[in-house]
Amino acid sequence: MEAEFDFLKILLMLLVVFATAKGVSFIFNRIGIPGLVGEILVGVVFASVMIGDSTIAVKLGIFEMTPDGRSDDTVINHVLEVFSELGVMFLLFSVGLETRVKDLLSVGKAAFLVAGLGVVIPFVFGYAFIEISQGGNMYHALFMGAAMVATSVGITARVIKDMRLTDAKESRIIIGAAVIDDILGMIVLAIVSGMANSGEIDITNIIIITLSAFAFVIGTMLFAFFVVPRIKAWVQSYNDKKFEKDKDFIPIKFNMMILAIALCFAFALLAETLGLAAIIGAFLAGMIFADYAVIWGMEEKVEAINSLLVSFFFVNVGLKVDMSGIDTNLVITLAAVIVLAVLGKYIGCSIGAKLGDKSLGKASTNIIGIGMVPRGEVGIIVASIGLRIAEESGVDVFTPELYTVVVLMSVITTIISPPLLSAAFRKRYKTDYVVQPEDQL
Amino acid sequence: MEAEFDFLKILLMLLVVFATAKGVSFIFNRIGIPGLVGEILVGVVFASVMIGDSTIAVKLGIFEMTPDGRSDDTVINHVLEVFSELGVMFLLFSVGLETRVKDLLSVGKAAFLVAGLGVVIPFVFGYAFIEISQGGNMYHALFMGAAMVATSVGITARVIKDMRLTDAKESRIIIGAAVIDDILGMIVLAIVSGMANSGEIDITNIIIITLSAFAFVIGTMLFAFFVVPRIKAWVQSYNDKKFEKDKDFIPIKFNMMILAIALCFAFALLAETLGLAAIIGAFLAGMIFADYAVIWGMEEKVEAINSLLVSFFFVNVGLKVDMSGIDTNLVITLAAVIVLAVLGKYIGCSIGAKLGDKSLGKASTNIIGIGMVPRGEVGIIVASIGLRIAEESGVDVFTPELYTVVVLMSVITTIISPPLLSAAFRKRYKTDYVVQPEDQL
Repeated sequence: MEAEFDFLKILLMLLVVFATAKGVSFIFNRIGIPGLVGEILVGVVFASVMIGDSTIAVKLGIFEMTPDGRSDDTVINHVLEVFSELGVMFLLFSVGLETRVKDLLSVGKAAFLVAGLGVVIPFVFGYAFIEISQGGNMYHALFMGAAMVATSVGITARVIKDMRLTDAKESRIIIGAAVIDDILGMIVLAIVSGMANSGEIDITNIIIITLSAFAFVIGTMLFAFFVVPRIKAWVQSYNDKKFEKDKDFIPIKFNMMILAIALCFAFALLAETLGLAAIIGAFLAGMIFADYAVIWGMEEKVEAINSLLVSFFFVNVGLKVDMSGIDTNLVITLAAVIVLAVLGKYIGCSIGAKLGDKSLGKASTNIIGIGMVPRGEVGIIVASIGLRIAEESGVDVFTPELYTVVVLMSVITTIISPPLLSAAFRKRYKTDYVVQPEDQL
Repeated sequence: MEAEFDFLKILLMLLVVFATAKGVSFIFNRIGIPGLVGEILVGVVFASVMIGDSTIAVKLGIFEMTPDGRSDDTVINHVLEVFSELGVMFLLFSVGLETRVKDLLSVGKAAFLVAGLGVVIPFVFGYAFIEISQGGNMYHALFMGAAMVATSVGITARVIKDMRLTDAKESRIIIGAAVIDDILGMIVLAIVSGMANSGEIDITNIIIITLSAFAFVIGTMLFAFFVVPRIKAWVQSYNDKKFEKDKDFIPIKFNMMILAIALCFAFALLAETLGLAAIIGAFLAGMIFADYAVIWGMEEKVEAINSLLVSFFFVNVGLKVDMSGIDTNLVITLAAVIVLAVLGKYIGCSIGAKLGDKSLGKASTNIIGIGMVPRGEVGIIVASIGLRIAEESGVDVFTPELYTVVVLMSVITTIISPPLLSAAFRKRYKTDYVVQPEDQL
């Protein structure tokens, strides 16, 4: 598989993947389906649909055909993998940027309970289903549980924003819960991927990984809350003092975007070194800057980088979906997983809402339950990590079939939630659902 | 050289290269040396300085040691190459964004003459010197001529901005000339690289390449000037009409950054297909958006992408400098090239200024002559393209030794110009030179 480096072919691949993904995403958004669904579909079509004698992915050099079948050991595939990994890192970094520690501490009891039960119940559902139905590979069950945990904030937030109901009580609970849910989801993923990486199930090991995951998350939160404002103040006062003594002194200024990129890379590496996942580091690096993201104009800048990179991640997700692996068994598993994913979140979150705030009526807990259903990118990321660990370590921690199930589950919960959520909101608030599709990323 | 894909090692390389380059660039800027010089130096040190038993570049996996010496056929090197190529593409794209066709048409006769003579004389100097001293490889001479042509707008503009002399007559002539110089430089590069790519010197061929280069450049300018505003107006009126008929119609909106990235990739491919260089396409793609870059906030967005990618280009430039190839002959060649590069621009531009505007005194033509001296990144880009074509085609169109000469010439003209220029300005205007280093990219 000696691979030739040819920049022209790499550029062609980048152009075709980028332009197709963005074009399809644009069209999907206009007809009211989240753009990322279109991007995943582009990957599935590129990998599976034959045009003439080969698939588009083979024509582009993403895959090669060998006597053993499809091989992805090409320079072009390596480049796509790097873009895809960096894309998901920056995506999580930007989610981190929106996760302010202060806001976390200020959301009410209801949000905490919604998030907590919304994590525990789907995890138990996913874990138990795979453990029972597939006959006892604990890692498969753990990754499925973890993939069912994390709500995708973006999709629900979009619906709320479109309906101009950001100030509704239900909306504030959903957004607060989704943020806590992200943190809990990251911790669950950290523990599960740490266990899979270490390759052995040993109680000391689990404790060490759990502690290091918590230490990393809590440590970063403390750092963001207590240390970052002091560093900022210190640089300011250093500049002021120097300038007082010497009018020609040039104030020390940092380009925050550059610091942020370096920190994102460094935390991703640190996370991997701790046995966690790169995206957890990227998420936490974003959280460090969250309090100043607006002042420093960082969100737009990260968005510009994301607009270049993120589509490669979703297309790559689609490229890994193995349509030939779909048989009756898989369809049954998929149906069960979707039902459990929807019910798990709905039950967990609506009960959590009722327990947390007795004043909420049925229409309100209904909104909250539905609002937390979409898994979007987060479930897919968890499954991708499971697949990557399996491929790299050779240990059977996850399978291509289960990966396909998670991707399809995420896509389907993402598609069905927005109309259900807007219906639930309309029932409660009698407002108009104004779709405002824009090219999302 | 079967290469393993290991994302962790790739991430480590990206972090080390990025953080070191930005850190050194920050320090260089603070002591008044352009940051890109520091970034090139990082590459040179990584490639040449032994730490223990190997260089940092080998430790990072950018190079491998084989029985035949240094090999760069590793996945990590391929990734670095892609980042570097995309970095220089986006850099030229951002230069294009600042090149408004309207402004080009409005600059005076002086700017045109400064640019024209400032291109012709250095080209002739470079071409003749290599042709005579190195014994007749026409391609070597052509690339050296082309590398001596293009002024780096950025460095001079920075000095002018720092001295708050943007409105001085000399400043306006320099900036106008630098923009025209960019266009002429691109055309020269297009012709030279086209000839080298086709591998044969044949008058029909030269005519075809020259015509396609001109057609591409002029075509893009016409498109930007006449067609883009009409497309913009058409989308606007389509939206208005639809909305008049149907109040629920959602206006068609494009995320301009995404269109721009796609166009940048597409034009780069088109340029390569025409036998020109990818960066020429990227530059022209930028020019298409130049009139609306400010309204659409594109400059900041491209700057965010550049802050991620461009350092990889300059570090890669340094990595390719072969310090072991430096001997007395090369030092003599380098000294001669630097003298010719400085004199060529100085003579060409100061004569051009005097011819174009008789009212300019000696102090003014002196400013204009010095202001056009720095070659910065553009000379290096030309040399990189020569080296790449030589490596890919196997034809001896350029050599690693001449590449090293051009890189060092660019670095040295870049370092010496700002102090000379500010001295010349001070002589004329008696103003203070206020250095305001910021992290440049």
